[in-house]
Formats: sequence, structure tokens, C-alpha cells
Amino acid sequence: MTLIDPTGLAQAAASGDAATIYICVTCQRAGMPESEPRPGAVLADATVKAAEGTGVTVRRVRCLANCSRGPSAAMRCNGSWTYIFGGLGTDCAVALIDGARLLATAADGLLPWRGRPEPLKRGLIARIPPLDFEEDCA
Amino acid sequence: MTLIDPTGLAQAAASGDAATIYICVTCQRAGMPESEPRPGAVLADATVKAAEGTGVTVRRVRCLANCSRGPSAAMRCNGSWTYIFGGLGTDCAVALIDGARLLATAADGLLPWRGRPEPLKRGLIARIPPLDFEEDCA
Repeated sequence: MTLIDPTGLAQAAASGDAATIYICVTCQRAGMPESEPRPGAVLADATVKAAEGTGVTVRRVRCLANCSRGPSAAMRCNGSWTYIFGGLGTDCAVALIDGARLLATAADGLLPWRGRPEPLKRGLIARIPPLDFEEDCA
Repeated sequence: MTLIDPTGLAQAAASGDAATIYICVTCQRAGMPESEPRPGAVLADATVKAAEGTGVTVRRVRCLANCSRGPSAAMRCNGSWTYIFGGLGTDCAVALIDGARLLATAADGLLPWRGRPEPLKRGLIARIPPLDFEEDCA
């Protein structure tokens, strides 16, 4: 079952708000011996493939500085919160794409818990508000 | 000693690129008993005061989802990388402001290690590239 609304997705893409995923290609699995290819690079390759036809942009980056809890990825849309995840497996490509599409349809810019893929629940590292964000914390 | 160039700062402010710091006001010190006021809120109050006259904007937010490693803050300028820090003390207000001013003067959008306040070295949680970032990772 998916909670993604195809109409919402189309609107997000049309307004330029399709999601971007950044994947660290240097990441090792935390606590595991060094390996080639790096798990982060394997995950990035798989996510590029999984993104085909979805409107999601995938960008490889060299370091997200989440090294102790890698492999790592971040995602955001224009106007959304930015999420960073760690402890990802090389099998998390579809979870990343599903999460990015869910974020792209979120009217409040927040990645909902309901329908969020499991690796993006247990692997949540932090979230950062959009550029113009203000909140009444009084 | 400071490595901050006042001329660079003035240019950053003039171009609208002065830094914004987001501070979680809900954060407890990880592993410590609950307290009121929350350490994150105390840090936010102190940082608002420390920001006076610097051009740095400080925004309180309710949750940066870095709960296991709080107190937490994030910072960025337009076009810079976004940094998130954890394990901050209530005495880290000046460190946050100094770091934000350093980031505002960084031509490459990266917070330099040299001159970075110690709490922003040991407390680094992750960094996320600017919106339009692309890197050749081949």
C-alpha cells in the first residue's frame, strides 16, 4: 500500500518542488571493516537507478559528516524541511525514493511518520527547517 | 585571536547572506534528568543576546530531531552548507555566533576547521550541501 497521491506528485514536479536526495559515496558501514566499493557508493548507484522516471533528483556527495553513523543520505524539496538519515543499507534505495516522493507531496514540508519507510524512521539523524522558517516557541 | 574578517562580514550582511542559527528549545542534555527550563531554551536565550549587533539571526525551533544528542543547533547562510551540532552546553552561545560569522565569510560555503570554535568541532552531527550543489564524484 502506498500513501502517495499521484496528483500531488505531479503538482510538486510541475512547481519545481520535486525532491533531491544527497547520498554520501564515501560512507562505510559504521563499525565494519573498510571495503571497496564503499557501501555509500553502492547505495548511491542503486538510488540513481531507482529514481528513474520518478522526478526525484539524486546527487552523490563526498561527505555529509555523519561518518560515525553512515551510510548517510539527506533529502529535501524547495520549501520543505531537510532530513538526514544514517545507518542505511545498500538495499535502501527504494526506501529513499519512496520517502522523497512522500516529502514532495507534504503540504507542510514535513516528512510524515505514517507511510514513511522503516529505514527512514529508525535511521533519522536530524531535520532542519526551510530557509524562511519561523516558529512561535513562546 | 579571531580569524573573522570584518570586511567580509559586512559584505555578507549586505548581500543578505548573514547566517541564521536554529536552536532547539525542547532539547534536554542527553542522559540527564528532565529540567525546566530546558537547556536548549536557555541556550537559545543566551544566543539571541549574543547575536545582538552581529547581523546573525537566531531562530528558536521546537525540534531538530537530534534528540539523543542534544542540545542541538543548526546554522547556514544563503548558498552555504548547513551544519547541525549536538551535545551543546548552555555556555555555547558565543561559540554558535562565532561559528555563524565564520560561515558567513566562507567563500566556498564550508565552515572551516581552522578557527572553528571547539564545541562546533566535537559536536558536529552532520552537514548538508546547499540547494544547487553538484559534485563530481566519479
